[in-house]
Amino acid sequence: MTVDVDFGADGLVPAVAQDADSGEVLMLAYVSPAALERTRETGRAHYYSRSRDELWEKGATSGHVQRVEEIRVDCDADTLLYLVEQEGGACHTGHRSCFYRTVEGETVGERVFDPDDVYDDE
Amino acid sequence: MTVDVDFGADGLVPAVAQDADSGEVLMLAYVSPAALERTRETGRAHYYSRSRDELWEKGATSGHVQRVEEIRVDCDADTLLYLVEQEGGACHTGHRSCFYRTVEGETVGERVFDPDDVYDDE
Repeated sequence: MTVDVDFGADGLVPAVAQDADSGEVLMLAYVSPAALERTRETGRAHYYSRSRDELWEKGATSGHVQRVEEIRVDCDADTLLYLVEQEGGACHTGHRSCFYRTVEGETVGERVFDPDDVYDDE
Repeated sequence: MTVDVDFGADGLVPAVAQDADSGEVLMLAYVSPAALERTRETGRAHYYSRSRDELWEKGATSGHVQRVEEIRVDCDADTLLYLVEQEGGACHTGHRSCFYRTVEGETVGERVFDPDDVYDDE
């Protein structure tokens, strides 16, 4: 029985992407019903961009796709957890994880690519 | 230099709580500027309840507090990651993590306490 996800007033839920092997939390983005459906159909992580107002596939530009091994839902069914195999790095800054800094501003995360090499069309 | 967290239009950011030892993602909740300040001051996770419209300390009722070892912020500074030492279980259902189910409805997470024993005043 599939869990009935509560997409709330704005039609989106936050989704946490976690590296299925290392356990590292990679990023948080938002998911619409269509993004969830595309993720389940393709096995690759899709999200919904609130700023661009569109469905997007993670890695469509950079090649840094996320293969989704499992999708979990929380107790209130209003947050998702994508367990993924991350190609390259999740962060547009070149870091493996978007959470590469402490709130004190210290860089603690690993940089795995040069964004200039990946996003050179922009 | 402390990172300037972007609390956005509603004055809240999502915060992911992750077990600092096991790497398990425990829960997602929302954080106000005051909740972040209390978390940093006390070393225990505080959040802001959107439904009750109030600051709360995780575990204040249940005893299942979260000792915060590190606070990270993502690239856009609009999401937090609390690395915590979780007392008992994070979920009010008695599971260690709120993400104890797959989206297909299969229970995959561990149940670590009986909520009837913990929340018996309610």
